[in-house]
Order: sequence, then C-alpha cells, then structure tokens
Amino acid sequence: MNTIENILSHRSCREFTERPVEKEVLDTILRCAANGSSMGGMQLFSIVVTQDKDMMRKMAPLHFNQPIATNAPLILTFCADFYRFDRYCECREVPTDAYQNLQAYHWAMTDALIAAQNACVAAEDQGLGLCWLGTIIYNAPQFIEILQLPKHVVPVACIAMGYPATEVALTPKLPVNALVHHESYSEYTDSDIDKMYRYLEEAPHNASAVRENCTGNLARDYVERRYRKADNEYFSDLLLKCIKEQGFDI
Amino acid sequence: MNTIENILSHRSCREFTERPVEKEVLDTILRCAANGSSMGGMQLFSIVVTQDKDMMRKMAPLHFNQPIATNAPLILTFCADFYRFDRYCECREVPTDAYQNLQAYHWAMTDALIAAQNACVAAEDQGLGLCWLGTIIYNAPQFIEILQLPKHVVPVACIAMGYPATEVALTPKLPVNALVHHESYSEYTDSDIDKMYRYLEEAPHNASAVRENCTGNLARDYVERRYRKADNEYFSDLLLKCIKEQGFDI
Repeated sequence: MNTIENILSHRSCREFTERPVEKEVLDTILRCAANGSSMGGMQLFSIVVTQDKDMMRKMAPLHFNQPIATNAPLILTFCADFYRFDRYCECREVPTDAYQNLQAYHWAMTDALIAAQNACVAAEDQGLGLCWLGTIIYNAPQFIEILQLPKHVVPVACIAMGYPATEVALTPKLPVNALVHHESYSEYTDSDIDKMYRYLEEAPHNASAVRENCTGNLARDYVERRYRKADNEYFSDLLLKCIKEQGFDI
Repeated sequence: MNTIENILSHRSCREFTERPVEKEVLDTILRCAANGSSMGGMQLFSIVVTQDKDMMRKMAPLHFNQPIATNAPLILTFCADFYRFDRYCECREVPTDAYQNLQAYHWAMTDALIAAQNACVAAEDQGLGLCWLGTIIYNAPQFIEILQLPKHVVPVACIAMGYPATEVALTPKLPVNALVHHESYSEYTDSDIDKMYRYLEEAPHNASAVRENCTGNLARDYVERRYRKADNEYFSDLLLKCIKEQGFDI
C-alpha cells in the first residue's frame, strides 16, 4: 500500500478473525522492526513473539484480562535490551558497567519503540489490525518472569495483532496543529483548549463513557476513572523497582 | 512508495542539499506523526518544528556541534508532553496531580516516539533523508529553555531531515534473528554472539574506527571511546534532575 495512506488510515483494532498471521507476513514485520534507526547502531532491543495460546492465557491476567490478550493470533513484546550488548562485551573482555544508568535505559527504550512502530506500520500495510497493550509496563516483573527475560532487559511495548474481524472507525484525535509548535512552544489559551478537546469530547464513545459513568466531563473521566492517581503511583513504584532490579540504576 | 520497501531501505543520512522541505511535505509528515496510537487516546506529545537557522545555531553546541544540526533544513523535536492535558484538566476544573510519576512519563515518552517514527517513515517516503540526534537527551535542560517548553514537557527525540546530498550506504545491522525470540527469551551462546556481531565488526566504518582509534575491538570502541561510563553517568544525573524538575517525579 502507499505509505502515507497506510499511516493515515491507522486505527486501533481489538477484534480479530481466527486467521493466523502467515509466516511470511510475520517475517516481513520483524524485518521492518529490525531496520529502524538505533542509538549508535547498537540495536538495543529485542522482540518476543507470542503465538502460543497457553502463553497468552498465562499472561492474560497481567493484561487485566482484556479479551484481546488471548483472542489475537499474534502478540509482539518489545523490550529495551542491553543484555545482548553485555554478552558481546563479555565475549570481547570489556567491562559492562557503562550502561547501567538512565541514559542507557532511555536509549534502549527508544530503540525498542522505533522498532515497535515500524512493526505496526508494516503490519497494517499487510492488512493486519493492531492494538497496543499498555498493561505491559503495569506488570513488568511478572512478564519478565514468564518471558524469561534476563537482566538488563525490560519490556516496554506490547502489541496485539491479527486480521480485523470488523470494520473499525478512525479514533478521534486532536487537530494536528494542537500538537505542533513552530520554533518554540506556544502557550494554549483556554479557548484553544476548548476548541481542541471538543473533537474528543464529542466523539460518541467518549460522550457515552462520560454519561454512563456520570463523571461529568472527559477530563474527569480520565482522572477519576480511567487512569487514577493512586493506581498510577502504585504501578510507578513497581515499575521503578523493576527497572532497577533489571540493572538500570535510574 | 511501497511501505515495506520504504522501511527496508532506511539508512541514516547526514548530508543534505540546500533544498528546503516544502510546506506540503512537512504537513504530510506532521499529519502522519499525529496519527499513531497513543496511551488511552491522550496524545501525550508535542512536536517542535525548527527551520530557522538562528535557532539551529543557538542549539548547535547542545548537539555537540554536529554539522547536521545546522546543515539540515528541518529539525523536529518530539516531546513527552503532559502540559496540554494539564491545561485541559484545569479548564475542566479537574486536579492535575495524577500524572506526575514514572508511569505518566513512560506513556508520554512512548507517545512521542510512536509519533517520531511515523514522521520518519513518512519523511523517507517523500524522498527525505534523516538522522536521529541522540544529543537531545544529553542537554535536555538547555533545549527546554531555548524551545520554551513549559512544565511537564520533556524533549525525548530529535530528528534532522532534508533532501540527501549523497547516496548513503545501508547501515550494517545485526541479523534479524539475533533480535527475535519465540515464546520466551533464549540465551545466546558465545558462538551466537561471535556470529551476530561479525556483521558489525566487519563493516568498513566500524573496522576503520577500531583501527584508527587503536581500541582493539568494536565492543571496546563503544565502551572506551564512543559512550563512556563517566559521560553516561554524568548525563544520566542531568537528565534525571531535568525530568523531575519538569514535574515527573520518577
């Protein structure tokens, strides 16, 4: 497909047919994932491919039992990975303690996300639908155990993929100019904010969520229901501990 | 162009012609950047477009005076941004303290990087070349000042773009299977490591760097010359302080 058309027709897809993802389609996704930019050419990421339904069922509770976590034929987990580079250093008798810090974590997370988004673009180009599972960083320690990730590897992105079972509507988004600043950041007036967020507030699924949950408005729906302070702080503590335990002293 | 071909022909480009990036080309890049997945639909990122040469010159030292930082006609800085969402919450009289933590930083960084990689794919599709400037996270506090980024905004990725002045060779990469694990992470034997990294060790620019700098092997060239422990730790401290000052208590 045309690249631009493909990117502009992206939407999150949460329901898939039973059709498995063919080996050559998966191979193309992985080759594209592997071909992004990376910090100093170090390629500080790994991809764990999940197709086995038993593995999916084991991980389902950690994905908060979202149906997609078991219904998708394919789940790709992208990890920030300094372990392979450590092993390389060991084999060349070079110390491995230069990369146990926040910079190194940032580099590896960046490499993993570049790879992940390349994989998404390549998947959608081949007719797949997909949805990111943010839950991967909520329960990182348990994913590390199940996926047997070694020290210096942290899962940072997880994407469920498959052939779409239904036509999905485009996700409502902020207007592009809400996200872009020329030369320096320009302040938003209250009226800018009203105008920008009206697109999201008026989207049927947002409007009905606010109505059904009696949260009054979309901002409150996010803060009081979807992503609450106490939860965010609880999972932040777990994530921080996990990143440190994996060997990044951030 | 065909999406897969486009992604598989990616290479880093550091020399550009004087031809400016046309407005419609830039607009397409920005629309693609804005159309990626985002955490809960919050779109927690901003893009600062730099085309003004005075701005580039001001930032050049912070990019360690890499020629590309002033020679590129276009630089895009992608920021993890919770400020706009804070402003939205303020306008709806909802507290903004739920997102001052590591989870929130992770979400916003992820959104920014999805946008950044979409922008790269869209740019290359339109004939541009590009190179990531990792320096953005080395000197984040000064970039924040120059780009006038408000609280709760942290620059996480920076990409220089332009029309390529020269044919650039593909960057040597690890074989794809070095990066991929099926169902769970498999250990690398020493001989796996030797085989994988031979591709990189034998690449002419790596081999000549090791020779010219007398570092003995590529691993040592990375650890003792390119990305040294003391530098990484110094810049990690700066980055941590900066992220906290911007309002993410990570």
